[in-house]
Amino acid sequence: MLTPDRIAINQATTKTQWGFRDSVEGYASRGVRRIGIWLDKLQECGLAEGKKILDANGMAVTGVNRAGPFVLDGSVPLSAAVDGARTAIDVAAELGADCVLVFPGGMPQGSRDLAGARGRFVSVAAALVDHARGTGVTLGLEPLHPMLAADRSVLNTMTEANDLCDALGSGIGIVVDAYHVWWDVRLKAEIARAGAERLVGFHVSDWLVPTRDLVFDRGMMGDGVIDNAEIRGWMEAAGYAGAVEVEIFSERDWWQKDPDEVVRTAIDRCRTFV
Amino acid sequence: MLTPDRIAINQATTKTQWGFRDSVEGYASRGVRRIGIWLDKLQECGLAEGKKILDANGMAVTGVNRAGPFVLDGSVPLSAAVDGARTAIDVAAELGADCVLVFPGGMPQGSRDLAGARGRFVSVAAALVDHARGTGVTLGLEPLHPMLAADRSVLNTMTEANDLCDALGSGIGIVVDAYHVWWDVRLKAEIARAGAERLVGFHVSDWLVPTRDLVFDRGMMGDGVIDNAEIRGWMEAAGYAGAVEVEIFSERDWWQKDPDEVVRTAIDRCRTFV
Repeated sequence: MLTPDRIAINQATTKTQWGFRDSVEGYASRGVRRIGIWLDKLQECGLAEGKKILDANGMAVTGVNRAGPFVLDGSVPLSAAVDGARTAIDVAAELGADCVLVFPGGMPQGSRDLAGARGRFVSVAAALVDHARGTGVTLGLEPLHPMLAADRSVLNTMTEANDLCDALGSGIGIVVDAYHVWWDVRLKAEIARAGAERLVGFHVSDWLVPTRDLVFDRGMMGDGVIDNAEIRGWMEAAGYAGAVEVEIFSERDWWQKDPDEVVRTAIDRCRTFV
Repeated sequence: MLTPDRIAINQATTKTQWGFRDSVEGYASRGVRRIGIWLDKLQECGLAEGKKILDANGMAVTGVNRAGPFVLDGSVPLSAAVDGARTAIDVAAELGADCVLVFPGGMPQGSRDLAGARGRFVSVAAALVDHARGTGVTLGLEPLHPMLAADRSVLNTMTEANDLCDALGSGIGIVVDAYHVWWDVRLKAEIARAGAERLVGFHVSDWLVPTRDLVFDRGMMGDGVIDNAEIRGWMEAAGYAGAVEVEIFSERDWWQKDPDEVVRTAIDRCRTFV
């Protein structure tokens, strides 16, 4: 059974209910000591105050969301996106986070050039990894589900993430979010390939049947088809000993509930289903 | 540019507007000479009459939809599903179709055992391929998008389809539906691996941004992000010389339109975007 010190909760899980301070205090009040944070929530109080709130609650940061997106669509110059990513890395360093999540973004509007978008992201990751090494922060590549390839992320499988890590060397790792990769016949093999050094995060939630929205209809562990416990076993067999982080985007269901109930349920379900 | 004799239309494209006869006649009236058919539509008139309608319109059948699903959920005994699949194969033989589409189905309700469901499908495919060889019909494996792994198909990538073909030998091939596989970084390599012998179908439509439904929100070629022309190039480089089949499930848009307009648009878009 998962011990409580392994459990983390990502602020996205109570995105609509709780701001930065409330989520830190709310998770802590239920005994959670690890949190995945979002920069837009941190901005409510600023880095210095945010750090105080975390420290006062004995809360360690798993991942900082996020560096990116990096999409050449004319809305944000690529150089500005890269500068923003460097800032995210610096924040992660300041907070002693396990990693900063790197979010490639999708294809530019009107484009059909998926390979081109992927190639550009490789260049961006290469540019960022130098900065990350200088700060001691690990870049966390998180393959996102193929249904998000067009508009959210062009990095869609563990195989691609491992290939990119092979190419870039140290300073970069992989966050395995079960929701995005559970379907992949190569998942177990690619987790083993990644190994302890490269595995920097593990996110859990569940895939609902039916799924009514491509982004915001995740389920609580146990309510869907993902065998989170089996995937955790694969992670640990590969040497992963880090947090098990609950990250649930659920516009119609969990984001409508009492946040304390969400947290209690998440902890219970981690024990039963992860 | 795609020549008209290469274009096929799948009956699903005008699913709500036209029955079996209307779709055959409607497509033929616009010069289309190949059609992908569905057994539920064929049942409107029966096999003998259906064959007459096809012949009278000079219409060749690309694929017969479909053999399966094969899900051990207690609703249909597996033996009955396999018997039904043999009947679908016999119909495809009678119609001289290029292939019969094999539809694995998803995971049984309440199950989290994806690997188990995949293993069972391998056994089913092995049982069917003998029957298919006896009739001269090719089984068409169509990898479906990973977002459909839970409830529609546990066969989700070209790699898995090629691996299964390797295991089962002759009598089985692959239908490449661009909508399901366009995101896959291995697509070009796996099309080349499949080669002319194994590639038995090519379906086109488009991935819309945003996509509002996991099954019934496909776009017309040119309205989304898929580079159908590039994928057709990969198919032809691998030796594929068969039909380019338009298959669009579109509850909110194309299924609401005048079906003749749908057909005219599909043909135009094939010329421009495929």
